[in-house]
Amino acid sequence: MPRPLRTSRRASAGALALRGRIWVDRGDQAALTDAGADLLDQVDACGSLSEAARRLRFSYRRAWMLVDAMTHRWPAPLVSTAVGGQRGGGTQLTEYGRRVLRSYREAQIEVEHALGRAQRRFAESTKAPP
Amino acid sequence: MPRPLRTSRRASAGALALRGRIWVDRGDQAALTDAGADLLDQVDACGSLSEAARRLRFSYRRAWMLVDAMTHRWPAPLVSTAVGGQRGGGTQLTEYGRRVLRSYREAQIEVEHALGRAQRRFAESTKAPP
Repeated sequence: MPRPLRTSRRASAGALALRGRIWVDRGDQAALTDAGADLLDQVDACGSLSEAARRLRFSYRRAWMLVDAMTHRWPAPLVSTAVGGQRGGGTQLTEYGRRVLRSYREAQIEVEHALGRAQRRFAESTKAPP
Repeated sequence: MPRPLRTSRRASAGALALRGRIWVDRGDQAALTDAGADLLDQVDACGSLSEAARRLRFSYRRAWMLVDAMTHRWPAPLVSTAVGGQRGGGTQLTEYGRRVLRSYREAQIEVEHALGRAQRRFAESTKAPP
């Protein structure tokens, strides 16, 4: 999961490279960013918000606030929390959350491809003058 | 000059909207951002760094530092400064600077178009569940 989107994973230290980033706003507030998408990915992988936070080296507070913000900015919940049970509940992506995450990753790839095409032209037309 | 790139200029306050931004890095340092491109645009329009800064409500210090950073991260100067003369010199875009700026705007438009396409699909696939 590139963050920022990179047009080349092995750009040499001195190379000029076009970068880009996407996110989702609701009104003027962020509804989904790369950090949020990474968190949803990890929640989906491990079924626990605290474990997802640990894997991303986010504080639990940061992870919780990301989920809380996302919860209020989408028309339906992206995650659901089970209460009780042998392992004390857990956090899962909802069907809708999975759909949002997949759509975000698809948009990211589409923009990344555009960036790759733009980079080739950009590199050509910004060569040092003779 | 949209900053951030917007897929719709009249998104209603509550609408979910995919946003994006591009920039140019050299290695891990920013070589051109929207702020820098806006500054180059204004320098080109008015021939003066201090007037360009005023128009963008940048401090002169910020404008100077942007130009200084750009100067060191491109293979040739983007601006040239004339010394003396009746109006005490002035700042102009070099031919190369003009080329870089034009290429940046083209890349911005290309990515904006991709974002627009992605937004349509994104809006469709993230509709609230019934």
